[in-house]
Amino acid sequence: MDQVLSYLETNRSRFIGELKDLLSIPSVSTSKEHVDEVRRCAQWVADHMRSIGLGHVEIMETPGHPVVYGDWLNAPGKPTLLIYGHYDVQPAEPLELWTSPPFEATLRGDNLYARGAEDDKGQVFIHLKAIEAFLRNGGTLPVNVKLLIEGEEEIGSEHLEQFVEDHRDLLRADLVIVSDSGMFARGVPSICYGLRGLVYMQVDLEGPNKDLHSGSFGGTVHNPIQALSEIIAQLHDKNGKVTIPGFYRDVRPLSKAERTAFRKLPWSDRKYAKELGIAALHGEKGFTSLERLWARPTLECNGIWGGFTGEGAKTVLPSKASAKISMRLVPDQKSRTIARLFERHIKKITPKTVKVRVQNLHGGEAAITPIDSPGVRAAVVALEKGFGKKPLYQREGGSIPIVVQFKQLLGIDTVLLGFGLPEGNAHAPDEFIDIENLFGGMRTCAHFYNELPAMLTRKGRSVS
Amino acid sequence: MDQVLSYLETNRSRFIGELKDLLSIPSVSTSKEHVDEVRRCAQWVADHMRSIGLGHVEIMETPGHPVVYGDWLNAPGKPTLLIYGHYDVQPAEPLELWTSPPFEATLRGDNLYARGAEDDKGQVFIHLKAIEAFLRNGGTLPVNVKLLIEGEEEIGSEHLEQFVEDHRDLLRADLVIVSDSGMFARGVPSICYGLRGLVYMQVDLEGPNKDLHSGSFGGTVHNPIQALSEIIAQLHDKNGKVTIPGFYRDVRPLSKAERTAFRKLPWSDRKYAKELGIAALHGEKGFTSLERLWARPTLECNGIWGGFTGEGAKTVLPSKASAKISMRLVPDQKSRTIARLFERHIKKITPKTVKVRVQNLHGGEAAITPIDSPGVRAAVVALEKGFGKKPLYQREGGSIPIVVQFKQLLGIDTVLLGFGLPEGNAHAPDEFIDIENLFGGMRTCAHFYNELPAMLTRKGRSVS
Repeated sequence: MDQVLSYLETNRSRFIGELKDLLSIPSVSTSKEHVDEVRRCAQWVADHMRSIGLGHVEIMETPGHPVVYGDWLNAPGKPTLLIYGHYDVQPAEPLELWTSPPFEATLRGDNLYARGAEDDKGQVFIHLKAIEAFLRNGGTLPVNVKLLIEGEEEIGSEHLEQFVEDHRDLLRADLVIVSDSGMFARGVPSICYGLRGLVYMQVDLEGPNKDLHSGSFGGTVHNPIQALSEIIAQLHDKNGKVTIPGFYRDVRPLSKAERTAFRKLPWSDRKYAKELGIAALHGEKGFTSLERLWARPTLECNGIWGGFTGEGAKTVLPSKASAKISMRLVPDQKSRTIARLFERHIKKITPKTVKVRVQNLHGGEAAITPIDSPGVRAAVVALEKGFGKKPLYQREGGSIPIVVQFKQLLGIDTVLLGFGLPEGNAHAPDEFIDIENLFGGMRTCAHFYNELPAMLTRKGRSVS
Repeated sequence: MDQVLSYLETNRSRFIGELKDLLSIPSVSTSKEHVDEVRRCAQWVADHMRSIGLGHVEIMETPGHPVVYGDWLNAPGKPTLLIYGHYDVQPAEPLELWTSPPFEATLRGDNLYARGAEDDKGQVFIHLKAIEAFLRNGGTLPVNVKLLIEGEEEIGSEHLEQFVEDHRDLLRADLVIVSDSGMFARGVPSICYGLRGLVYMQVDLEGPNKDLHSGSFGGTVHNPIQALSEIIAQLHDKNGKVTIPGFYRDVRPLSKAERTAFRKLPWSDRKYAKELGIAALHGEKGFTSLERLWARPTLECNGIWGGFTGEGAKTVLPSKASAKISMRLVPDQKSRTIARLFERHIKKITPKTVKVRVQNLHGGEAAITPIDSPGVRAAVVALEKGFGKKPLYQREGGSIPIVVQFKQLLGIDTVLLGFGLPEGNAHAPDEFIDIENLFGGMRTCAHFYNELPAMLTRKGRSVS
């Protein structure tokens, strides 16, 4: 291990250079315009896999963006680890809010800024370099590894479920590791054992069949922007609870132990609000901020648009208004059920003065991994060695639907080992990865590969 | 007059061709990008004024877009008519909803489609051709005319008040005529004696200081889109009344006579709703549709935007959300007072979880002209001769702030003689002017110039 760790140290500059290349590719999966760039990124990942010594490297087609697969299976008798990540990224808009261009990775202080720096190219890169460090220093890994790096995570991993189902044999493994989440705070390594699910909807209202002059028609027609605002305003009650009937029915209540554990984490509402620049927090009454973030479902408007949005004043009474509305789910809510309840409720509260269309854009389930499972225990040891500190246990407010699918389709648990930061601006301008987390992440992953066989054996698991 | 009227008839094709040229200039005053096109349009109007025989033609500067002035003052002893119009137009967006390009005027059936066709280039053109018809057939007009064609009507005539104040002598006249409104219906000539006023505001909310990941932060932060929706939803009560305290305080109640007159107009709520493609009308309880449109103030959202509005799904909890909100005013509401009440109310109901900025983008007052005034009487006679039908009396829901300023600054009344149609799509895609209204308008204006001297004399007015 010493050689591996020192290799990670001595190659820092080259690694940063390589990561900058990966981050320069605008592999925005949400936009049809970027389809060629997404494929170019898949090619980069495949080429890089080959260059570090992985085998069976292949760009595997799906009906959407391709999956990149590669493996190293030369440790007979050792367990097999399936490493999942994604090479696609969120859109970079609004571009004017970036300090440096989103696809020209820029180092400022300890942070490397670029779209995808932490979500998730930087974290995929962490695994590639940890693997390289083993293969260039002795030529072997302590575990067999299979890498599954997809290109559609930011659009709900639309074709991944089918892909996994179609390639059960290829993907057979003892454990999945996903590095697509964050640490609790800078310098506070943590292991994430729970994720929220997601349902992402779009609501389109149509009032009059064309845009109208607000003077000549105003006063007689229900303005669809107003109707949409009235609908959105009804989706929460005055206690911050979502008003959709049945929304909380399947929510697993927080245990007393978990509430106590959350309270032990270093957290200040005041500091949190100050960092976000808000005078007051806002959320569901009766729960702390961490409970609201990790263990309670939410409903958010992700976007709204209608009428004239340019400079100046246009006196239009618009024909249409739309909103993107998503809900974060917790165990044991089911995304399809919630989507159905949402659609039914929206249709029920939409006034007859406007027409409504409700679309389900995508969704995925919430997940929890037992904290005494071998994978989580290996991760705890690896984090302590990688960062020199005992990690804390946390959950995460975001969603990785594929975690649920790995369990359902392959029957294997997932460990979430994330190296992002809460302030890292995933999905926002000025996304970055902390360079210390980048290299701490590589050390941790190296240790994780090294610790895993013993932990899995201790649990009595057979090797694939 | 026979020669004049037959000249209008025999030159139809040439006139349509000239109007197409005028409509081809994208003189969008709301957009900084179009500043050169606005000036090119002013030049076209000035050149055309000279070509039809007007004198003192000048492009007169303002701090914004220029005013085009021209006159014919060779009828000593006759009254002077100030003809007001505007050569600027609304933005054409959304472009994809136009059947033919907005700046390539296209004749389909009886309608000529283009941005500005009825609002207001087509109606300015009506006066130019009526004047030309006199000057090419005998070389004189029955009245003196001064033309004031501005370039900032669609942005609230920002510099016109100062311009009028600075040029009181130049603009001295006995009556103003404004052709920037509509007829009651196709084939139903009408005289408009009242306009609503306008206050146009923008509300910007800022929640967190940057866009956040809706998974990692959702549940703890007041989403500004939600906050904005909640604010907008509060601006009307369940009876459709605006909830801003003091909003209705200065509203002049409808007289019984006026309510009766409105009820006599040919109107069907059912047909109106069907034409607009809506299942139900919506508005202030206790008033008919025409009362709501002409004699009651309204509040409309003209635009809303925030978060991710592109294709697909971006799980952002946005930092900002904004809305453009305008209010139509009626006598005796004052635009400044209403703007102040609006701002105060918005600030009061904005929760402390977000920051708010309220801007007054522009405004103008409502106006009513007595229906027994000489100008209105001349218009009634002219409309009957021009269209072969007795006109009806109507009010208009739109706003022409300059009408109030002419009264205040020059002490002169305005007659509103409009030739647009309710379905003419002013401010919307597929704006058009009915060709029969275009030529009926020219005949009417010619008769109006002819009738006016006698009406003004009968009232005992002295000539300037």
